[in-house]
Amino acid sequence: MRGTGKAVRSPFVATFDCLSFLTDYGLDDGFVAACHGVAARIAPGLRVIDITHLVPPGDVRRGAAVLAQTLPYLPVGVHVAVVDPGVGTTRRAIAVQAGGHVLVGPDNGVLSWAVTSLGGADAAYQLTNGELWLHPVSQTFHGRDIFMPVAAHVAAGTELAAAGTAVDPADLVTLPAPTSRVHDGVAEGEVMSIDRFGNVQLSVTASDADQLGIGFGSSLVVRCGRRQFTVPYLETFAAVAPGETVAFTDSAGFLSLAVNAGDAAQQLGLPPGAHVKLSPASS
Amino acid sequence: MRGTGKAVRSPFVATFDCLSFLTDYGLDDGFVAACHGVAARIAPGLRVIDITHLVPPGDVRRGAAVLAQTLPYLPVGVHVAVVDPGVGTTRRAIAVQAGGHVLVGPDNGVLSWAVTSLGGADAAYQLTNGELWLHPVSQTFHGRDIFMPVAAHVAAGTELAAAGTAVDPADLVTLPAPTSRVHDGVAEGEVMSIDRFGNVQLSVTASDADQLGIGFGSSLVVRCGRRQFTVPYLETFAAVAPGETVAFTDSAGFLSLAVNAGDAAQQLGLPPGAHVKLSPASS
Amino acid sequence: MRGTGKAVRSPFVATFDCLSFLTDYGLDDGFVAACHGVAARIAPGLRVIDITHLVPPGDVRRGAAVLAQTLPYLPVGVHVAVVDPGVGTTRRAIAVQAGGHVLVGPDNGVLSWAVTSLGGADAAYQLTNGELWLHPVSQTFHGRDIFMPVAAHVAAGTELAAAGTAVDPADLVTLPAPTSRVHDGVAEGEVMSIDRFGNVQLSVTASDADQLGIGFGSSLVVRCGRRQFTVPYLETFAAVAPGETVAFTDSAGFLSLAVNAGDAAQQLGLPPGAHVKLSPASS
Repeated sequence: MRGTGKAVRSPFVATFDCLSFLTDYGLDDGFVAACHGVAARIAPGLRVIDITHLVPPGDVRRGAAVLAQTLPYLPVGVHVAVVDPGVGTTRRAIAVQAGGHVLVGPDNGVLSWAVTSLGGADAAYQLTNGELWLHPVSQTFHGRDIFMPVAAHVAAGTELAAAGTAVDPADLVTLPAPTSRVHDGVAEGEVMSIDRFGNVQLSVTASDADQLGIGFGSSLVVRCGRRQFTVPYLETFAAVAPGETVAFTDSAGFLSLAVNAGDAAQQLGLPPGAHVKLSPASS
Repeated sequence: MRGTGKAVRSPFVATFDCLSFLTDYGLDDGFVAACHGVAARIAPGLRVIDITHLVPPGDVRRGAAVLAQTLPYLPVGVHVAVVDPGVGTTRRAIAVQAGGHVLVGPDNGVLSWAVTSLGGADAAYQLTNGELWLHPVSQTFHGRDIFMPVAAHVAAGTELAAAGTAVDPADLVTLPAPTSRVHDGVAEGEVMSIDRFGNVQLSVTASDADQLGIGFGSSLVVRCGRRQFTVPYLETFAAVAPGETVAFTDSAGFLSLAVNAGDAAQQLGLPPGAHVKLSPASS
Repeated sequence: MRGTGKAVRSPFVATFDCLSFLTDYGLDDGFVAACHGVAARIAPGLRVIDITHLVPPGDVRRGAAVLAQTLPYLPVGVHVAVVDPGVGTTRRAIAVQAGGHVLVGPDNGVLSWAVTSLGGADAAYQLTNGELWLHPVSQTFHGRDIFMPVAAHVAAGTELAAAGTAVDPADLVTLPAPTSRVHDGVAEGEVMSIDRFGNVQLSVTASDADQLGIGFGSSLVVRCGRRQFTVPYLETFAAVAPGETVAFTDSAGFLSLAVNAGDAAQQLGLPPGAHVKLSPASS
């Protein structure tokens, strides 16, 4: 290959100790366990970390967000994410190499934010090599029959390129990023997610706030439709009295609204997707 | 023993890397973890795959169905299933050897469909050897004190026959199989289960459909009581438009009804146990 | 040190195979998985047993009770418990050595009942050594950034004293034990918890009952406010007919009330914290 002038990338082969797994399968049935079993039969010593299996059915954006926010804390490994309302149709099954990790799932965007957070795809493959699959393949359970067996084989040392046909990473389906922009002294964004505590995660980052001159100890005005309220911006929700509302930087680096010992999403009426504007309170 | 004319079976001894675990204990309390801990103390390197712990309390049929449908995808190992409304009464505690696996649980039928799917029991034992138990034995938590410790000891290499008294496999409690028969151009069956997506799994198999001449791309008539509707039979629920109803072969080989991106069980009003009749739509 | 007359304790250093984990983080988000990932990166071979992550948000007493009742069945190891409504405030982060185990969490009492059940603290440290933490430290997610990395380092062999400053175990926050006393032929207590089956666990022990002369087969009178009812005291809830109420000794050694195949908490109207009095039924 010497002298061709093209970048030459050596084939990606690695063994991984750890596989992570995110789905919308729920915990009531045996679906998740069947996938664990398939992995254990192919790679007996592989450690599986379940990210969550309670993504709301078919909610690709929610799956993408949880994956992207959790991945930075996981060991280098193979990550399988299956929120796949188009299972069995023409949507592609893919494996993406990014930052030393391998991500496996449907090409519907569920992997895209995580790939971006890892610095972008180094290579991508459509899963076309049926030799790595579990047969017969169910047309409604590719998690068990395609994604997990391919991932387990890759973790066990199968060359990633053996999974199928190389595809141009630029052609992968990418979810639009949550709206977020700073202009004229205002940070605009949307509600990205609500966690178990009712905390409202916005698509506005701590550095957006910083740009507006909003620092810990100052107050900010939140506008949502015709409603508007002023809250202190503090280091943690526990810094205000129980029942009081506060803005803080959450564990993923996003501005979030909380009611200490209460449910902010419910009290403030801010569902996922709601558009919000933040600005410094006039002092 | 030579010349006695009887089949002689050598004692079953094996070490297993993998134990699976299914219960109705729920995930709110520490019950499942206590069992994991008991297993880890007896067999520190044993991998535990949780099938589910959200079987509705006391629903032995549901537990049996999930176990039987998941087991084919698990590594050869020991499988503990505890849905045990009669814990502490005279129902027997058993270990069953089948197809190289060992199944451990109450003798109330929860293991029976899995044993059948493994080709039937090769041997069975009533758990009477208290030396393998955790003492003192709680009369309401045999999962922790009897089933799990026995299973972990067996996984660690204790001869299965040491678990207790041999019993005739024919004497084990067997749940009646879900109704299913094909006659006069009709497949009769019942709703076996509803999964997280609202998909309705019937006790009618793909080969039953085949017998009636129902193939992918054809339509079938579903009758339930006085209601009747016609749906296409396709390879996957995602093959119809969102909101439309479809019949497909699910990942366990059963005919299922789905509403793409919707909840079929709710929309069609088909609860578990409901009696249904399927026939080809007249073309 | 010889001749100083003080007790000399050699530094506590051990490697552990097993870490247990209890939180109120829920299972919908990636919070638990991020913690698992952090542990796996520090101590790749460490086994993690999840006790539960469904402690009601901020319910320190419930977390303390589940931890204390589960710990006796877990392998010797490191136990991380994070129910931490005061995260990011002045409450201390601690590691406690007790009975060969190490417990890690906030100093708000969540560890206290478990420490007591292990015979009391042998040593305690405030987590002040930031070298063992994950940086940057989120002020709202010490589970991921402080508790879990410290616990994983200790499991991997870091000397416990390296975690921070020694503190007097007598200064640790201790939750008041549930009310329970026996006097004048009556055992007074409170509802400690309701499990998934609706069984009502009281703070009255089997030995309290024994003191009152209540043995299996006898009946007892339960008083709660103005209500009063008589139930048989039997070895297991399954000893009565479906729908009937029974008192039994549960798997943690406490008197509990159940309705066989029903929900006692709902039927009897006994929420957590309710005050109850038990006495032998006059024969």
